[in-house]
Amino acid sequence: MRIDRRTGLEVLDIDTCLELLASEEVGRLAIGTGGAPLVVPVNYALDGETIVFRTDPGAKLDWAGRGGATFEIDGLDRDSRTGWSVVVSGRLEEVTRYDAATLERVSRLAVEPWAGGDKQHWLRLIPGSITGRRLHRR
Amino acid sequence: MRIDRRTGLEVLDIDTCLELLASEEVGRLAIGTGGAPLVVPVNYALDGETIVFRTDPGAKLDWAGRGGATFEIDGLDRDSRTGWSVVVSGRLEEVTRYDAATLERVSRLAVEPWAGGDKQHWLRLIPGSITGRRLHRR
Repeated sequence: MRIDRRTGLEVLDIDTCLELLASEEVGRLAIGTGGAPLVVPVNYALDGETIVFRTDPGAKLDWAGRGGATFEIDGLDRDSRTGWSVVVSGRLEEVTRYDAATLERVSRLAVEPWAGGDKQHWLRLIPGSITGRRLHRR
Repeated sequence: MRIDRRTGLEVLDIDTCLELLASEEVGRLAIGTGGAPLVVPVNYALDGETIVFRTDPGAKLDWAGRGGATFEIDGLDRDSRTGWSVVVSGRLEEVTRYDAATLERVSRLAVEPWAGGDKQHWLRLIPGSITGRRLHRR
């Protein structure tokens, strides 16, 4: 474990990032729009190294296949002023019936959105990078 | 208070959004890049309706004045499967000594980054929109 002495930040390895991603169930999806990104909390599951979630028709679905997106989870502790974050950046795409094997696999994942609505569309974020940092007490 | 019966979502008014922004001290900044957004947790303070934070030279500072950015805070409760989020989108700019009045005002704000480093540069996100949602138990 290597901690930057100036900032107190440790760079997390990929296995730690994936463990943290597997341990959470809600994060924030930021979708590039050319201007200010859209940012929205989403319930998700992990399909290997891919972030999978369900959605209704709307901005997220409109953007699928068109641009880049970033998914973030974190654990922040105000008392100790420490925390960690994991950031996945990549390409957002809809999983359609034309990719039946993937659709069947992700449909079995336990993605239960807290918010109501049909959310019959499946999106996935195919990672180009997975990075994480943990801030230690100095 | 009007809750969407299908989704359980309540749209928060601007005063509630600003109260929530005033009550927190760390959120996530998403910076548009043309591709996948950069997303990073930041300590912040509120200067009126403007989000203010400190930074070291790097991607955030490089982007200031060039593009759109979005700031998000939330409170998510896995036990009750409820939560809220507030999202501020706008224009990121550095507060420099050429705007001495603003620099003096923001320098007095209690922005104490958890991470170390000089962080001598001040950035602010000038909102184009402030929106919030609260998910109720259905």
